[in-house]
Amino acid sequence: MGKSKAKFKRVEPLGLKKVRIRKDSFWGERIRLIKEVVIPYQWNALNDKIPGAPLSHAMENFRIAAGESRGEFHGWVFQDSDVAKWLEAVSYCLMQQPDPELERLADRVIDTIVRAQQPDGYLNTYFTIKEPQKRWTNLRDNHEMYCAGHMIEAGVAYYEATGKRKLLEAVSRLADHIDSLFGPEPGKRRGYPGHPEIELALIKLYRATGEQRYLKLAKFFIDERGQEPNYFDIEAKARGDDKEYDKRYSQAHLPVREQKEAVGHAVRAMYLYSGMADLAFETNDETLLEACKRLWESVTERRMYITGGIGSSAEGEAFTFDYDLPNDRAYAETCASIGLVFWAHRMLRLEVDRKYADVMERALYNGVLSGISLDGTKYFYTNPLEVWPPACKRYDMRHIIPVRQPWFSCACCPPNLARLLASVGQYAYSRDERTVYVHLFIDSQAEVDLAGGRVTIVQETVYPWEGDVNIRIRTERPQEFTLAIRIPGWCKHPELKINGQGQEITVLKGYAWINRTWRDNDKVEILFPMPVERVRAHPNVRAAAGKVAICRGPLVYCLEEVDNGPNLTQIVLPKTANLMVKFDDRLLGGVAVVHGVGLRSDSASWGDALYNSAECEKREAPIKAVPYYAWGNREPGEMLVWIREE
Amino acid sequence: MGKSKAKFKRVEPLGLKKVRIRKDSFWGERIRLIKEVVIPYQWNALNDKIPGAPLSHAMENFRIAAGESRGEFHGWVFQDSDVAKWLEAVSYCLMQQPDPELERLADRVIDTIVRAQQPDGYLNTYFTIKEPQKRWTNLRDNHEMYCAGHMIEAGVAYYEATGKRKLLEAVSRLADHIDSLFGPEPGKRRGYPGHPEIELALIKLYRATGEQRYLKLAKFFIDERGQEPNYFDIEAKARGDDKEYDKRYSQAHLPVREQKEAVGHAVRAMYLYSGMADLAFETNDETLLEACKRLWESVTERRMYITGGIGSSAEGEAFTFDYDLPNDRAYAETCASIGLVFWAHRMLRLEVDRKYADVMERALYNGVLSGISLDGTKYFYTNPLEVWPPACKRYDMRHIIPVRQPWFSCACCPPNLARLLASVGQYAYSRDERTVYVHLFIDSQAEVDLAGGRVTIVQETVYPWEGDVNIRIRTERPQEFTLAIRIPGWCKHPELKINGQGQEITVLKGYAWINRTWRDNDKVEILFPMPVERVRAHPNVRAAAGKVAICRGPLVYCLEEVDNGPNLTQIVLPKTANLMVKFDDRLLGGVAVVHGVGLRSDSASWGDALYNSAECEKREAPIKAVPYYAWGNREPGEMLVWIREE
Repeated sequence: MGKSKAKFKRVEPLGLKKVRIRKDSFWGERIRLIKEVVIPYQWNALNDKIPGAPLSHAMENFRIAAGESRGEFHGWVFQDSDVAKWLEAVSYCLMQQPDPELERLADRVIDTIVRAQQPDGYLNTYFTIKEPQKRWTNLRDNHEMYCAGHMIEAGVAYYEATGKRKLLEAVSRLADHIDSLFGPEPGKRRGYPGHPEIELALIKLYRATGEQRYLKLAKFFIDERGQEPNYFDIEAKARGDDKEYDKRYSQAHLPVREQKEAVGHAVRAMYLYSGMADLAFETNDETLLEACKRLWESVTERRMYITGGIGSSAEGEAFTFDYDLPNDRAYAETCASIGLVFWAHRMLRLEVDRKYADVMERALYNGVLSGISLDGTKYFYTNPLEVWPPACKRYDMRHIIPVRQPWFSCACCPPNLARLLASVGQYAYSRDERTVYVHLFIDSQAEVDLAGGRVTIVQETVYPWEGDVNIRIRTERPQEFTLAIRIPGWCKHPELKINGQGQEITVLKGYAWINRTWRDNDKVEILFPMPVERVRAHPNVRAAAGKVAICRGPLVYCLEEVDNGPNLTQIVLPKTANLMVKFDDRLLGGVAVVHGVGLRSDSASWGDALYNSAECEKREAPIKAVPYYAWGNREPGEMLVWIREE
Repeated sequence: MGKSKAKFKRVEPLGLKKVRIRKDSFWGERIRLIKEVVIPYQWNALNDKIPGAPLSHAMENFRIAAGESRGEFHGWVFQDSDVAKWLEAVSYCLMQQPDPELERLADRVIDTIVRAQQPDGYLNTYFTIKEPQKRWTNLRDNHEMYCAGHMIEAGVAYYEATGKRKLLEAVSRLADHIDSLFGPEPGKRRGYPGHPEIELALIKLYRATGEQRYLKLAKFFIDERGQEPNYFDIEAKARGDDKEYDKRYSQAHLPVREQKEAVGHAVRAMYLYSGMADLAFETNDETLLEACKRLWESVTERRMYITGGIGSSAEGEAFTFDYDLPNDRAYAETCASIGLVFWAHRMLRLEVDRKYADVMERALYNGVLSGISLDGTKYFYTNPLEVWPPACKRYDMRHIIPVRQPWFSCACCPPNLARLLASVGQYAYSRDERTVYVHLFIDSQAEVDLAGGRVTIVQETVYPWEGDVNIRIRTERPQEFTLAIRIPGWCKHPELKINGQGQEITVLKGYAWINRTWRDNDKVEILFPMPVERVRAHPNVRAAAGKVAICRGPLVYCLEEVDNGPNLTQIVLPKTANLMVKFDDRLLGGVAVVHGVGLRSDSASWGDALYNSAECEKREAPIKAVPYYAWGNREPGEMLVWIREE
């Protein structure tokens, strides 16, 4: 750790304001969708103006708490966070493109939020409206700190987007209020949240304000978590609550540095681990970094779907145990994959290693993006890898809703998608004094300040559809620095040219490190050939035994009933079958489609017997695979990622 | 139906007293186990004398209701039925072998039961002890008729075993009491049980006593079921119970003749369909027979595991939908397979067709027998086809207990096993005036009264280990009759000799019909070659796609971790792999073991990556399969029926 500590200390992600994404690119289109469709749509949802959608009431709760309206609180105890995440998404849009009208709307929302804040800094509509006497009596279940964290993130983002301090100051007062109640000092309670989130938010607030006490409070929450006597026990006893509670659910079963396996509620885990990584970064805490790395291995080497989905059990929305990755019952909550992106991004700051960026990319292009419809107005909460609609009537499958929904009564995912997708640019690059890191391949332009001055990195690519990435360096004067370009883990034979000349690629930790004195207009061409690949799972993954997933570049593919007919599990892919790719710009917003000829059990020839020693006849059948993220955007039906191979 | 109606009318199963099973044969050993071990063990369980086992209290409930003891009722509302089933098992043992001591014990139990009966004939310890005012107020949930049915079965069996009428008369009074309350006549309630069972019991009582009113009452219960207005609604309304109830659960959603698919609680379904088949037989009811046949197809062609397990969902212990047969989450309650045997046996009386006997045999040798340990003292309630012990910690798998249990708080299965296995002889043969039917191959001797006089059928076989069956006819004088021998569906090339001479086999409805004038000592040798077979499932069964089950004769095989190491799903069976069978008399009480060489993914060579485009190396690995029924009798671990084939 010694040397890397010195090194990672200087690596910083390039903020959203430094990155400009080309509008008609893959991600540019999605950012446009978030701004033009999703943010207005979600605003309507938060105001209960989507016909047929479950009631949100989230804005109305704030208006009631602010004294602007009358009525009862409605929704979950964490309903406030939907508004905060929406506001954060708005902020990211404003960072990239001014929009006075949207900003005025956000200002009005902030006015309401701030009016809902109590004189002591407290801010939570549930407790303000409904149970003011129960504030802070159940940190384990009641999400007060979780909501505070999201509002802090919104306050920081809005400040960074607009320079306006109103919400930032409000959330600082909120953080100060929390700081006055919780901490290691005598007279304060040694509590911490049941749902982590405030930790990473406080570190953002610390970075935005420079106030050490926010970092200190975040450190306290992380350090105290899982210590004995366990605060959740103390608190439950004080409430007279003697129901059994598995502390693994909220990762409070052990001090965080002793946690070796990812357990419990997957979103909570991701937000906790993100906070831990942030804290390790800010405090040079090696033991915390080691804990993060162990947990990283636990998640990504043993408990993650190929889509970047995590949390394979609906019960507790939780991790289970190693290699337990059932496809049909996969919970794989959209928010959990979003959290995995957050965590990966933070790990990448601690240690530049493509294993983090690979997972970040895997989740982004698959298990995250699958959560939102192509038109931006329908969502998946769970992201299974195999859907057989009638099976969703089984009691043990009731969490799988095989059709995208306009909203959810528990609507954490939609605004979480909005804030992540709106800010995808900040995940693409990072820098230190002498290095520009390119983690994601996005058609974009990035301004990077290095020791030798500012350079502009102009990245041109139609990734993920093709693996050609052209990078042009714009610099006022020649300067020496390193361009560190990630070679994706899925790419076996990358090719590199500089100014038209082929180059050997030196790969270290999964990055090509190109150090030279760069001149204006220097051109780096990098090619990641994108054959259609058959990807296998570790032989301990029972649900994928004998099966392959069709992948191309960062994309996982799937079969849908609408393209391949019903009974998708009757399809088998011969080892020799050629899989070809063809871009179809009229399908699913434009996707590279994978075509091939598979074999299919001929149920007509089999007859009525349920069991028979004869082999079922197979006939050739065309197969057509589409990117997993795009499934469920046409007529409802079956879907399958893992295909039998023989 | 016209001609078969005339025909089936005369077909009668050969009662247990007519069949003698050789003691050291496959089934003889099991009958001995029931008598010597299981009945005493279960007596102890019913009296709470098994250390570590869940409390039964079933006998104590009777003693309390009888005024012999004081205390509270404990257990389920159907706790009485455990005693009734035990008593029925005792009766079957006594039919086959006198045992004065056991008979004295049974007499004492009956004395207590009869003392627990109320003056009006009512007999149910739960309501007598706990809620006398609530008698018959909730037929849907409260199992009063179910318990009555089991007690009636016990009363009939004990009478047939011993000629003693005390319990028979008690259950007749109970049936009369029920008849006085329920029926189509004015003043009676049009109710019927939530859990069918009394229907088939009343028909047994009718056959034992000749009293038409019991048949009439059974007919009423069956005919009334699912009619509108639905009695369960009327009754719930009267109770002020407005909770939602899915009438499919208890097959009360439609009149039985309109039911086309097997739905709801699988044991309820089996008992209902058994009663329907009995009623169809007794009343020549063609529409009821047609309903039975449709339901038979629904179960056996679309909703049955290869083991004869049925009910693939833990929720509601129920059937789900066509081809939904997950292996790991299979509920496949032992009682449901037992019920399938009951039903198959009754269908066979309506129509001699091997499809019924095949399923009866499939369930008996696999999904039923798997429910009891080789030593008779440990039980499975659920019978999954794939067990991965850590996965049983998943919430959606919590019904799978991967280790046999000494007893259950809901202990329906153990005494149900006892009564079925003790009486297996009655499933082997049936007769009409001129035909002897051999349905099961059991080393046994059967006395059959035909139009031309009595013949004795002496069957010699070591089935299921070998497929040689020798049948010797003993008859005082030559007589013409037909010997109808089932050719099992699994057997492709049966061979037949009569008195040493090879014969063509004429197969009709799956039976070889041998009509001739038989002389004393005539010998029929029939050979069912028993190669190891790879059996496939219908291509719509997703959970078995690309997989085979190893079968030999009537036995389904499985892999166990104790023989094959962990991670059984890493094993693949090449299409060319030779599977050999070897009898091991020291293993699992003596079993034919299937050996072969499979391939196994080499996880050591794979490395840590969770996903990779390279194929995992495979190495040859010996595989050893044992009969499914015998699994879980050694050290705990994984188990697998469906094996990947390539």
